Amino acid sequence: MRMISSGIARQMESSSWIRKMFEKGAELKRVYGSENVFDFSLGNPDIPPPAQAGEVLRVLADDLVRPLGMGYCPNAGLPPVRAALAEMLSSEQGVELRQEHVVVSCGAAGALNSFFRAVLEPGDEVICPAPYFVEYGAYCGHFGGILKPVASLPPRFALNFAAIKAALTEKTRVVLINSPNNPTGCVYNQDELRALGEWIESVNSQRESPVYLVSDEPYRFLAYDGVSVPPVLPLSRFAVVIGSFSKKLSMPGERIGYIAVNPELPDVQVLINAITLTTRTLGFVNAPVIGQHMIHAMLNEGVDMDVYLERRAAMADVLRGAGIRFQMPEGAFYFFPEVPGGGDDVKFVADLLARNVLAVPGSGFGYSGYFRLSFCVEVEVIRRSADAFKAVMQPYE
Amino acid sequence: MRMISSGIARQMESSSWIRKMFEKGAELKRVYGSENVFDFSLGNPDIPPPAQAGEVLRVLADDLVRPLGMGYCPNAGLPPVRAALAEMLSSEQGVELRQEHVVVSCGAAGALNSFFRAVLEPGDEVICPAPYFVEYGAYCGHFGGILKPVASLPPRFALNFAAIKAALTEKTRVVLINSPNNPTGCVYNQDELRALGEWIESVNSQRESPVYLVSDEPYRFLAYDGVSVPPVLPLSRFAVVIGSFSKKLSMPGERIGYIAVNPELPDVQVLINAITLTTRTLGFVNAPVIGQHMIHAMLNEGVDMDVYLERRAAMADVLRGAGIRFQMPEGAFYFFPEVPGGGDDVKFVADLLARNVLAVPGSGFGYSGYFRLSFCVEVEVIRRSADAFKAVMQPYE
Repeated sequence: MRMISSGIARQMESSSWIRKMFEKGAELKRVYGSENVFDFSLGNPDIPPPAQAGEVLRVLADDLVRPLGMGYCPNAGLPPVRAALAEMLSSEQGVELRQEHVVVSCGAAGALNSFFRAVLEPGDEVICPAPYFVEYGAYCGHFGGILKPVASLPPRFALNFAAIKAALTEKTRVVLINSPNNPTGCVYNQDELRALGEWIESVNSQRESPVYLVSDEPYRFLAYDGVSVPPVLPLSRFAVVIGSFSKKLSMPGERIGYIAVNPELPDVQVLINAITLTTRTLGFVNAPVIGQHMIHAMLNEGVDMDVYLERRAAMADVLRGAGIRFQMPEGAFYFFPEVPGGGDDVKFVADLLARNVLAVPGSGFGYSGYFRLSFCVEVEVIRRSADAFKAVMQPYE
Repeated sequence: MRMISSGIARQMESSSWIRKMFEKGAELKRVYGSENVFDFSLGNPDIPPPAQAGEVLRVLADDLVRPLGMGYCPNAGLPPVRAALAEMLSSEQGVELRQEHVVVSCGAAGALNSFFRAVLEPGDEVICPAPYFVEYGAYCGHFGGILKPVASLPPRFALNFAAIKAALTEKTRVVLINSPNNPTGCVYNQDELRALGEWIESVNSQRESPVYLVSDEPYRFLAYDGVSVPPVLPLSRFAVVIGSFSKKLSMPGERIGYIAVNPELPDVQVLINAITLTTRTLGFVNAPVIGQHMIHAMLNEGVDMDVYLERRAAMADVLRGAGIRFQMPEGAFYFFPEVPGGGDDVKFVADLLARNVLAVPGSGFGYSGYFRLSFCVEVEVIRRSADAFKAVMQPYE
């Protein structure tokens, strides 16, 4: 019998590469022992959250009897949490936000779904630089939206502004960027972003249905070598920022993020009310309330970045030692190196797998010829993987 | 400018009655003081969660350093939580479930969205007895589904089986029931449910795309006077059960529910995998992980039902004293009384509002001529509302 819808059946067939590698990795670990498998497939923060997380839980435990904040909460989030986020974002973005410009979400993934549901008509298009986080296609696809990937420019994977302009149609509703980028580690600079913002403004001056500039930035806190991640809200009245505490506080399981809108957006409250409504009716209802209390108490905290710096250096050494070409990531916790000799990324990842190294082919991010390595892995594991990479590279020498 | 999609713009215009009453109530409370407003509009559990909730949070606080279970979790839920839910549901439903037949969800609302996304094609129909929880329409509407309400039979609001049969079309994909019912308090009995299950089986024997029988039962634990809530899973291979801990453990803010599928469903794993996928891609990713730990530790706990029993008795006294006709609710925490003289429910609710009593018109649940009163309110407040009800009823005497 036909148990599920045709759209979801198609999605399941093409099920994400990351998930496939996860499953293969679990199998390898069973067979060879987890210490002998080099799993660079998942962007899963493995370092503990800041110590304050425990303090907050203890306070909440005592608050239970009053009763604590576990009852229904406004769909847009606890007012003090929205206010604190607005204050944090005002300072970070250089645009003055009040709490009514911010909605607390069920992670960045929840924010993107709520936003797409609020603005997309069936058939509307979302322009997105490739490579891109593959779930974006599913997020807009739930509501009839269509992702339009536009190849970025190696080696840095800079925005291909001419190609983005060329991709614009009457159906374009969103330009979605992700910086620091997963999978490339690229941080878009002020010049590229300013050009994008100015173009969005000029496009919208002739439109009844505006194009939104959405910046998904769960890795904002994680930029290296003094690189700054330019704020997007000042670049256009149509700018929207989406963030998450999953990586910043190493608490991806509790699902807390946010969406913030430029206060100068025309009818800004209509959009915020729509996102609040879709947050409710998509079944999030509200961001998990314990997590809201936790991030509120830790807005100025972050996990120890030195851990990631050390891992990035170790991974760069391993790649250099094997003769693999790569761009040093400016942010996030991924490398996106070239497959040697312009080869097939799916085959190369299979070769890595044969040496117990788990990676994700660039094809899984809409960009073949490259592969992604996550360095959410202990530094000793990274170092021990050096021989495997060298062995895989031997035929190419 | 046109900032949001046309579908969501329509939803916002017809925004839920419950929400409207909530806003009016907040205004009244500002003006008259909250002790002078009788707010029976919201089904918001106001009694504290069981004391164990605090214990669990303290254990989690200590576990943080290991690190605790705040990292990514499988999209279908923590395996020990799924296993414990399967065990609980096996005993409750009288059908043997294993963990692979259960997905932990972001509340019942999240489960319904994940399920509808997994099975509905655009244009597919969901038959639902009226009155009904009004968000059902939005849940299936996100994915192009259409809710087809079928009026239940007063005074008990029994299933109108003949009308349900008559509503079946080639597009029917789901029959969605809610027992104990919000807003009527009706618990469907074994005879009505068995007939429904047998009919679903016979319908599906001639279909390539089966009709699912979905029972949304967040109030299962809350049945009075020894009434039992019959299990739905044994009634059909196509039966699906959705539940929540929001009411049972008074923790609606943390968003934990579940969806469980009859193990005899054809290709059962295809449906479970699809629900797991949509849980991920709709942006839930996983049910909030702290909440998962909490409900795991409290599967056999529940809030003090005597509180609700006392309130139900008090509310029945108030209604009797005012000469308002009602059916005693068999479950949940709502009354759904008749508007006197077959009158206009919207007008009657406005009359109540003029006396500082907040209720929701039956029209808000697709069933005019009645109104809903929630008794999630302290018993003294219920008693003090007696004069207001009497005053409103005076013109009808």
